[in-house]
Amino acid sequence: MKKTRNEKTKNNSVGVVETQYYTFAEQGRNHKLESGEVLGPITLAYETYGTLNKNKSNAILVLHALSGDAHAAGVHRGQDDTGWWEEMIGPGKGFDTNRYFIICSNVIGGCKGSTGPSSVNPATGKPYALDFPFITVADMVHAQRHLIDYLGIEKLLCVAGASMGGMQVLQWVASYPERVKSAISIATALKHSPQQIAFNEVVRQSIMADPDWREGNYYEYGQPEKGLSVARMIGHITFMSDQSMEEKFSRRLKNDKFSFGFDADFEVEGYLRYRGANFVKRFDANSYLYITKAIDYFDLSGGKLIPHGKAIDTRFMIISFKSDWLYPSHQSQEIVRLLKRRHVDATYCELTSTYGHDAFLVEVEEQTTLIKHFLDKTFNGYLVAGNYGI
Amino acid sequence: MKKTRNEKTKNNSVGVVETQYYTFAEQGRNHKLESGEVLGPITLAYETYGTLNKNKSNAILVLHALSGDAHAAGVHRGQDDTGWWEEMIGPGKGFDTNRYFIICSNVIGGCKGSTGPSSVNPATGKPYALDFPFITVADMVHAQRHLIDYLGIEKLLCVAGASMGGMQVLQWVASYPERVKSAISIATALKHSPQQIAFNEVVRQSIMADPDWREGNYYEYGQPEKGLSVARMIGHITFMSDQSMEEKFSRRLKNDKFSFGFDADFEVEGYLRYRGANFVKRFDANSYLYITKAIDYFDLSGGKLIPHGKAIDTRFMIISFKSDWLYPSHQSQEIVRLLKRRHVDATYCELTSTYGHDAFLVEVEEQTTLIKHFLDKTFNGYLVAGNYGI
Repeated sequence: MKKTRNEKTKNNSVGVVETQYYTFAEQGRNHKLESGEVLGPITLAYETYGTLNKNKSNAILVLHALSGDAHAAGVHRGQDDTGWWEEMIGPGKGFDTNRYFIICSNVIGGCKGSTGPSSVNPATGKPYALDFPFITVADMVHAQRHLIDYLGIEKLLCVAGASMGGMQVLQWVASYPERVKSAISIATALKHSPQQIAFNEVVRQSIMADPDWREGNYYEYGQPEKGLSVARMIGHITFMSDQSMEEKFSRRLKNDKFSFGFDADFEVEGYLRYRGANFVKRFDANSYLYITKAIDYFDLSGGKLIPHGKAIDTRFMIISFKSDWLYPSHQSQEIVRLLKRRHVDATYCELTSTYGHDAFLVEVEEQTTLIKHFLDKTFNGYLVAGNYGI
Repeated sequence: MKKTRNEKTKNNSVGVVETQYYTFAEQGRNHKLESGEVLGPITLAYETYGTLNKNKSNAILVLHALSGDAHAAGVHRGQDDTGWWEEMIGPGKGFDTNRYFIICSNVIGGCKGSTGPSSVNPATGKPYALDFPFITVADMVHAQRHLIDYLGIEKLLCVAGASMGGMQVLQWVASYPERVKSAISIATALKHSPQQIAFNEVVRQSIMADPDWREGNYYEYGQPEKGLSVARMIGHITFMSDQSMEEKFSRRLKNDKFSFGFDADFEVEGYLRYRGANFVKRFDANSYLYITKAIDYFDLSGGKLIPHGKAIDTRFMIISFKSDWLYPSHQSQEIVRLLKRRHVDATYCELTSTYGHDAFLVEVEEQTTLIKHFLDKTFNGYLVAGNYGI
C-alpha cells in the first residue's frame, strides 16, 4: 500500500515509476564548470510522468529543493514512499499528467543518483569527497540542459520549482531563455539575503565541526551523524513558521512532567531530534555542504536574470507564502518587480498559508488552481488550434 | 581609555566599578530548588551604581540576558570594557545613578562569578559539571531575593530587564510581588514558544554533539569549542533582524571574489565565525545548557504571574521591538493583556527599531525617555512630599 499525504491523491497517482539515469560528457570532453574546473562524465537521475506529445510541446521540467530528488510523484516498485510533490503531479492534478509530460531532474552535487561528492571519482576509484569540484546553480542547470537535449525537447512548456527549485527555474530563464516557454517560481529568491547565508553557514559549520566529518573523507567510516543531524534541525526550524510550530506542538511535553535534565522534554525537541537523525540516513553530508554553498552564491539580481538589451517571451508565475520567513514574500516581489520593469508577462500570488516555507509542499489546493490555470493558458496559447499533438 | 558604544556616554559613565560577591546558605542549610534538589552555599556576583538613600526607597534591580553578567555599567580597574548596559545606566541616563541606586545581579547557573556548573562542588573539590542541580528562573530569583535581603532593601523601586532579564522581572513579581514597586520588562515573554524552545534545543544539541563536551566533564581539558561556537552562531542569527543583517553585511564579500570552496566568503559568515570563536573564551558550555533549559521551562502564563484571587500594586512598563522575531511583540502584548485583565497599571510601548532582539542594547534614546519618565513617576508617587531621602 502506498501512503499519501492527502486522501484525495489516493486514486489519481501516476502509480509505479522508475528513476532513470542519463550519463553524458560534453562533446566527448568533461563539463566545464563556472569555477573553471571540469567534471565528467556526469550522470543525472530523473523521472518522467505522462506522455510526450508528437511535437514535443507539452514537456514541463520540475525542479526540487535542497534535499529533494528526482522522485517527485508515484511510487517505486515495492516501496511505500510517494514522491515529494505527489499531490501536485498526476492525472487531473496541478501538473496534469493526462495532458503534460513531466520531467523531474535531480541536481549535480547531490547524492540521489546524480554525480556528486559521494560518487566515485573515475580518476581514483574512490568517492570524490572534497575533490569534487565546486558547483553552482548555473552548473546544475547546464547539466539539466543536456538531459533536455537528450530527450529531444527544443522548448519546455514550463520550468517549475520551489525554494532551490525556484532558483533553478530562474537560472533556466537566465541561461536558456529561448528554451523556456513559461516559468513558475515558488517561495524563492533572486539571491540569498545575509540571513539566509547565515543559516546555511551555521549548517556547514555544524557538519564540519564534527570530527567524524574527517575533512570530508568519511565514506569508509560513515556519516558525521551528530553534526549533520544538528545541521538539519536548524533547517527544520526555518522550514516551519512560529504559528505552524505553535499549532503542531505548542508547549506539549513528551512525558507528563519535566525531566529536570537535558532529555527532550517538549514534543518540538523530540520532533527535531527525530528529523535530524532521519536525515543522516538519507542525505550525504558533503552534498549538503556543496549545495548550500551553491545557493548562497546564486545571484540573478540586477541585469543577470535578463541581461540588458535582451528581451524574453517567457511567461512567469511567481508564488510566495505569507508565513514563509526563510524565503519571505518580499524576495518574490523583487523578482516580480524586476520582470515588470523588463516588460515580462508576470503574475504574482501571495498565498496566506500558515505553514511557513513548507507551504509549497502542503498547500495543494490553491497551488493546484493557480498552476493548472497558468499551464492551460500557456499551452493553449502556444498551440495552433487543433494541434494538441497527443 | 575606556571604549563606549556611544559617544554621548563618554562623559557620564559611573566610572570604575568592582564586582562584589555575596555568599549565603539558607538558614544555615542548603538552598532548596524548584526541582526538589538542594544547592549551597550559593554565591551571587553583583555590582551596584549610585547611592542607596536613607530610607532605601531608591533601589532598582537590573537583570541580564542569557550570557550577560553583573557588569552592567562603568569599567573595571585597568580594563577597557564597559558594562553591557553602559548607555542606559549612569548619571543622567535612563537609570539615573544621580537619583537611584542600581543593583545588577548575576544568575545562579551562570559562569560569571555566581555558583554554576563550572563552580567547585564542595562535596568533591571538583567542578560540579552535570552534578550541578537543575535550576529554574524562579531559583535564580529566589537567590537574588537573598541578596536584596542582605542589602537591607525591603521594597525595590523597580526590577528591570530584557530578554531572560525580563523573565526574571516577571518572576520577581510572581514570587515576591510585595517587594516590587514597579517592573520594566523588555523584549521578553511569559513563556517560550515552540520556536524559541526549538532554537535552544539546537543550541544544546550542538554543544552536546561535540565529543570535547565529554558528557559535561571537560573542565580539565578545555571547552567543547566547536560545538559551543556553532551554538552561539545560531544565537547571533536570532538576535539580529533580516533587515539589520542586510544593513550591516548585505552580500559583501570578505575578499574581492568567491573562494569556490568552504571558506567564509561573505562578511556575514566571517562575523558569525568570529562571534562563535569569541564566545568560547567567555562563556561556559554547561552554563549555556543549564540556562537555556531554565528559560525553556519558564512559564508564567495563565494564573501564574498573578495567582487568581490575589491583587498586586506593582506598576508595569512593557517594551518590545517591531523587528524582534526572537521575542516578537505579540509575546509582550500577551503580558500586557494578562496584566490589564487583572487591573494592573501597565504601559506598553512597541518601538520601531530595525535591530531585532539586539535593540534592547542599542536603542538607547527611546528606551531612555520611556524608562526615565516611568521611574520618575514611580519614585515621586512613592515618596511623601519632601522626603527624597538622599
